Amino acid sequence: MRSASWPSSGAASLIALVLVALISLLIAAKLGGSLSEYFGQPAVLGELLAGIALGALPLAGVHSFTFVAHDPVVTVLAELGVILLLFEVGLSTRLADLMKVGGSAFLVATVGVVVPMLLGYLAGWWLLPASHPFVPLFLGASLCATSVGITARVLKDMDRVQTAEGQIILGAAVIDDVMGLLVLAVLVGLVGGSTTSTGLTAATVTAKAVGFIVGSLVLGRWLAPTAFGVVSRLHGKGVVFTFALVTCFVFAWLANLVDLAPIVGAFAAGLVLEGVPFDRLLPEGDRLEDLLLPLSTVLVPIFFVHMGLQVNLSELAGGSILLALVLTGAAIVGKQACALAVVTRDADRLTVGLGMIPRGEVGLIFAGMGLNLKVGGKPLLGAGEFAALVAMVLLTTVLTPPLLRWHLAHVPTQRLS
Amino acid sequence: MRSASWPSSGAASLIALVLVALISLLIAAKLGGSLSEYFGQPAVLGELLAGIALGALPLAGVHSFTFVAHDPVVTVLAELGVILLLFEVGLSTRLADLMKVGGSAFLVATVGVVVPMLLGYLAGWWLLPASHPFVPLFLGASLCATSVGITARVLKDMDRVQTAEGQIILGAAVIDDVMGLLVLAVLVGLVGGSTTSTGLTAATVTAKAVGFIVGSLVLGRWLAPTAFGVVSRLHGKGVVFTFALVTCFVFAWLANLVDLAPIVGAFAAGLVLEGVPFDRLLPEGDRLEDLLLPLSTVLVPIFFVHMGLQVNLSELAGGSILLALVLTGAAIVGKQACALAVVTRDADRLTVGLGMIPRGEVGLIFAGMGLNLKVGGKPLLGAGEFAALVAMVLLTTVLTPPLLRWHLAHVPTQRLS
Repeated sequence: MRSASWPSSGAASLIALVLVALISLLIAAKLGGSLSEYFGQPAVLGELLAGIALGALPLAGVHSFTFVAHDPVVTVLAELGVILLLFEVGLSTRLADLMKVGGSAFLVATVGVVVPMLLGYLAGWWLLPASHPFVPLFLGASLCATSVGITARVLKDMDRVQTAEGQIILGAAVIDDVMGLLVLAVLVGLVGGSTTSTGLTAATVTAKAVGFIVGSLVLGRWLAPTAFGVVSRLHGKGVVFTFALVTCFVFAWLANLVDLAPIVGAFAAGLVLEGVPFDRLLPEGDRLEDLLLPLSTVLVPIFFVHMGLQVNLSELAGGSILLALVLTGAAIVGKQACALAVVTRDADRLTVGLGMIPRGEVGLIFAGMGLNLKVGGKPLLGAGEFAALVAMVLLTTVLTPPLLRWHLAHVPTQRLS
Repeated sequence: MRSASWPSSGAASLIALVLVALISLLIAAKLGGSLSEYFGQPAVLGELLAGIALGALPLAGVHSFTFVAHDPVVTVLAELGVILLLFEVGLSTRLADLMKVGGSAFLVATVGVVVPMLLGYLAGWWLLPASHPFVPLFLGASLCATSVGITARVLKDMDRVQTAEGQIILGAAVIDDVMGLLVLAVLVGLVGGSTTSTGLTAATVTAKAVGFIVGSLVLGRWLAPTAFGVVSRLHGKGVVFTFALVTCFVFAWLANLVDLAPIVGAFAAGLVLEGVPFDRLLPEGDRLEDLLLPLSTVLVPIFFVHMGLQVNLSELAGGSILLALVLTGAAIVGKQACALAVVTRDADRLTVGLGMIPRGEVGLIFAGMGLNLKVGGKPLLGAGEFAALVAMVLLTTVLTPPLLRWHLAHVPTQRLS
C-alpha cells in the first residue's frame, strides 16, 4: 500500500515537508480567520495576521516553520489559490456590467497610477534630498500598482462583486496591471540608460497585454460555448468541471506569457466562462461555483496566510518611521484621488477609493528590485528606504479589510441589473 | 492586479511551468479516461496509458513535457491526489467491517508476501544461475508489495469498497505495507552484512508501524468526535471541512514519520473520521464526501497520469523478454495464492487475487535500489534485470483495471451489513 514515496527517499521527505506546511497554514488560516470574524472583522485580516505571526516565529527562536514561506510547492499552491479566487470572481462578473463601468474603471486606474506616483516622488524628494534622482522615482513607482486579491476577497465574502463599485475596482485592477507593466518597462529602461529602446519596449509590452485581454475575451466568448458543448459529450466523471479549470489555467498561463499577472488571465477566464450555460452541461444539480468552493476554501486562505508569511518584521527595524508614515499616507491619499475619477452615477466613491488601497506583494517586488538595481555601483535603495516600503505595504494591506468592511456596512448593496 | 509573480521573476516561471504541467496532465487524464470508458474499460486504465504516451513523447523527438514527470510540485500534487483517494476510501469503510475480515486480510497479506517472493526467487535462481545470491532475493522482494492505489480506484469507481472482497484487499494492503517495511529492513541489513542489528531494526520498524496503526485508530476514534464538536463551534466558512483535511494530512504525515506510506495514514484518517457525525457538523445539506469530490476529481487522475509518466519505455529495451514474462507470471500467480487464503465466507476469492496484482511504483523503487546497491563493487542488478522488473510493474499495473472490471461485472455486489 505504497505510493511514490519510500522510507528516506527524496519524494518521502518532500511530501512530509509539504504536509507540515499545509497543516500549519490551514490551521493558522482557520484559527486566524475565525478569531477575526469573532471580532467582527473580515476573515482575510485574520489570515494575514496569522501569516505575519507565523513569519515572526524566528524572532521568538522558533525556526521550524521558516521553510514554509519560501518552499516552492507551497508558493505554487498559494498562487493557485489566488488564481482560483479571481476565477471565481470573474465567473460572478458579467462582461456587460464591466463594460458599463469601463469609463470609470479606466479613469480610476489612470488616476490611481499617476497620483500615488507623484505623491511618492514628492515624499522622496522632500525626505531624501541627498539621494540619486532615481530613488524618489522608484518610491513613487512602488506606490502605483494595486494588489486586487485582498479587495476581491472582501467583496466576494460580503457579496459585493456585482455592484457598480465592485466592477469599477475589478476593471481598474486589470487596467492597472497593464499600466504597471508600462511603468516597469520605462523605469528599467531609464535605469539602463537607453531611451529609444525604452519607448519601443513600452509600446510592445502594452500592445501584447492589451492584445491578450481583448483577444482572449472576444475569442473566448465566441468559442467557449461550442467548445464546452463538445467537451460535455465526453464520457467520464467531472469532465466539464475539469475543463473549466483547464480553461482557467490556460488563460492564467497565457497572461503570464505576455508578462501580465496570472490572476488577470484567471479573471478573464471567469468572464469568458460566465457566458457558458453550465447549468445545462453539468450533471443535474451541480453548479460550477459550488464545485469550485471546496477547492477555493482550502487554497484561497493558504494564499493570504502565505502573503502574511512574506512579511519579515525584522526588515522593519532600522527604517525611518517618518518615511514609512509619509509613504503610507501618500499610498492611501493617492488612491483616494481615484474616488474623484468615478464617473458612474450612483457608484459609491469612497468604496472605490478604499478598495484600491492595498499594495500587497507588488510594492515588495518593486522594493526588492530597488535593493538589487545598482546605480553608480551602489544599490538604488538603502535598507532604510526598503524598510519604509515594507511598512507601507504591510499597513495598506492590513488596513484595507477592516476599513472596507466598516464602510460597506453603511453602503446599501445595489446590484447592477 | 498582481500576485506574487512578476515578469521573469523566479515565481513567475515556476507557476508557468506548473500551469503547463497541470493543463497537459488534466487534458491527458480526461481524454484518456474518456476514451477508456468509451471502450468499456475503467477510466484509470486510460489515465495510465495517457501518462505512458506522454512519457514516450521524447522517443518521438518531443521533449517539451519531459519536466512534468520529475517536477517536484507536480509530484507532490500527484501524491496529494492518492492521499485524498485513500482518505475517501477510508471514509466509506467502517472499522467494524474491516475487523470482521481481519483474519482473511492478515492471511492474504502474508501469503501475498511469501509466495511471490518465493516464486521471484526461484525465477532468478532458474534464469540467472551465474548471478550473486542476492540477485534472486532482490527480484523476489520486488514482487512482494502491493500498490493499492489502482485497485482502490477501481473498487471506488465500481462502488465495491463496502464488499467483503473490498475490505479484505484494503486490510491486506495496510498489513502488506508493514510487511514490506520488514522485508526492506531485512534486505538492507543483509546487503550491509550485519545480522544482529538487522533483527533489531526489523523489530523496531515493525513495532513503530503497528504502534502507529493501532494507536491512531484507537486514539482517533476516541478523540475525533469531541475534537470536531469543538471545531464546529469556530466561526467562518469551511472550518469543519478544512479540519477534516488537516486530520488526513496529519495522519499521512505521522505514517510517513514511522516509515509507512502516507496513504496508509490517509486511509486510517478516513477510518477515524467515518465515526464523526459530519451530517450534524457540516452546514445544512453538505456531505463530507461531496465536498471532497471536486478536489479528488482533479487530483486523483493527476496521480495516475503521473504514475504512467514514470514508465520509461526506453528502459524496457535490452531486457530479457523471458525474464520479464516469468517475473510477471510469478507476480500474478503469486498473488492468486492469496485467493486461497481468504477464510471469510461468501467472499469472492478471485476478486481478492486480482485486486492484489498491481505492483506500481513499489516494484520500481525496489528495482531502482537494486541498481544503486553495490555488491563486490558491482551494481546488484544489471540493466537487463532492471528492465525486466520495469516490464513486470508495467504489465501488472495495466492489466489489473480491465481484469478486475471484467471479473466484477460477473460478481454480484454484496455489501457488508
